[in-house]
Amino acid sequence: MKRPLFRQVSIVGLGLIGGSLGLALREGRVARTVIGFSRRASTVSRAVRRGVIDDGDTALCPNWLEASDLVVIATPPVAVVKTAARIARRVEGPAVLTDVAGIKVRIVRELERLLPAHVRFVGGHPMAGSERSGIEAARLGLFEGALCLLTPTRRTDRAALARVRRLWRAVGSRPVTLTPQAHDACAAQISHMPHLAASAMALAPEAEALRFAATGFRDMTRLAMGEAAMWEEICRANRRQVLEALGRFERELACLKRLIAAGGGAPLRRRLVAARLRRKGLALFGGAQKGKHPERA
Amino acid sequence: MKRPLFRQVSIVGLGLIGGSLGLALREGRVARTVIGFSRRASTVSRAVRRGVIDDGDTALCPNWLEASDLVVIATPPVAVVKTAARIARRVEGPAVLTDVAGIKVRIVRELERLLPAHVRFVGGHPMAGSERSGIEAARLGLFEGALCLLTPTRRTDRAALARVRRLWRAVGSRPVTLTPQAHDACAAQISHMPHLAASAMALAPEAEALRFAATGFRDMTRLAMGEAAMWEEICRANRRQVLEALGRFERELACLKRLIAAGGGAPLRRRLVAARLRRKGLALFGGAQKGKHPERA
Repeated sequence: MKRPLFRQVSIVGLGLIGGSLGLALREGRVARTVIGFSRRASTVSRAVRRGVIDDGDTALCPNWLEASDLVVIATPPVAVVKTAARIARRVEGPAVLTDVAGIKVRIVRELERLLPAHVRFVGGHPMAGSERSGIEAARLGLFEGALCLLTPTRRTDRAALARVRRLWRAVGSRPVTLTPQAHDACAAQISHMPHLAASAMALAPEAEALRFAATGFRDMTRLAMGEAAMWEEICRANRRQVLEALGRFERELACLKRLIAAGGGAPLRRRLVAARLRRKGLALFGGAQKGKHPERA
Repeated sequence: MKRPLFRQVSIVGLGLIGGSLGLALREGRVARTVIGFSRRASTVSRAVRRGVIDDGDTALCPNWLEASDLVVIATPPVAVVKTAARIARRVEGPAVLTDVAGIKVRIVRELERLLPAHVRFVGGHPMAGSERSGIEAARLGLFEGALCLLTPTRRTDRAALARVRRLWRAVGSRPVTLTPQAHDACAAQISHMPHLAASAMALAPEAEALRFAATGFRDMTRLAMGEAAMWEEICRANRRQVLEALGRFERELACLKRLIAAGGGAPLRRRLVAARLRRKGLALFGGAQKGKHPERA
């Protein structure tokens, strides 16, 4: 039997991402022991029963944290900084922390300011998810083939980065590094804006029209079923970039609208063809397809 | 063996919809004979080889058309009127025609004006499709559980309507009737607008950001891979309603943007929750789910 990559990994927050990570670490024998923390005792016991973690607690036990090669903070974005600070107060020896939040600038900046030197943080964001949430939504294979964006800065410890990268690679994802700023700009455009567009689209049609919604409309509004509280936090934390991404989208919509108002024809067709080609180009990279992304960290 | 519902059905246009209909009619023994017409000889022979039709031709043979209980025009929307007129010139006895185009007002109005009394037309629009097109994309089961919108007017022959309804029910779809005007307004909101939004979304992100597109962005832009020529026609034919539907969507987007610019918080969260609930309500109706739509014709 292969030797586990890690002796112990702790996961703080046992929702869709934390739970799926636990399943992947245990199933793939990536860590000898997986410890899980959740505010609710019922979530901890459900996680043990489902085989997501070996053991866990509602309190951040110092012993378990100290004995972990890596602590993954998988709470909602708004709680990451506070959770990291709390962990830092509980560990005396060296520790490596990472997170999974969809925003990075604010988190990385604050943690670089407030964490003590022996607690090393690496920003992370696995590009996997679902409109579902909670431990019930956790599933094996969630990270398989997905990109995982890591956002080291000049102050990031290289050994800590390497350790986090090994973790994500071991669960089948493909780590890519970029700056926290580039992360937030890109995430606003390909994740935050589409979520907001899905919400706007779900709200737009008259009730009469909604009765006839078929698969196209369903796919286009699926993301609107995501957790409102988390998306509100993300919009707040990444406000400037989200507004800019929405602006880009609005300008493209307005352009199509103008072409339609002007009678369509070749100019509209050309624009639709451009969109089609751009979308088709995507199929070559990233996402759920395995081994096709040109960049790997 | 059950007796087929129809002796003969002709399908004019063997693309995704026409081809899938042929497969369903033959597989389900809904018609004893399925005849297919396509401008290209290679498409006709491919359709025969794939078992989509029993026989076919590139010319609209009067004998075959005359012997058909029903002629389904499955060409692109722009060709429906011309094709119907051509069929009308070739048949001397009574005939029932229907179509599958995503726009109805213009087609129904023009055909009511120009078809002779012995050729009875019923507007139809199966709410099934895919971003793929052509006979290669045809598949059995495409209409299974899908709504099929039929748009009779005061001038529509009731027996012809009943015949068309039987056809769509026999291939597993659920016929619903509404006026051509209501159809075009609804289709603009739940089909045409989402297609345009998908195109705008594919065009919006910077190239740098597109490299990280994951499943959410992929789902939100899938429709942009549809046929540009057909979507341009639809926008042209249903211009007023499409512009209005885009306007509704733009207003919802602008509202979310305003809430984000104002700092998010409870007002933004409430709006996202409203979108979530509206989308969740959808799951109870229509689309690919079987037997759950409250209205059936």
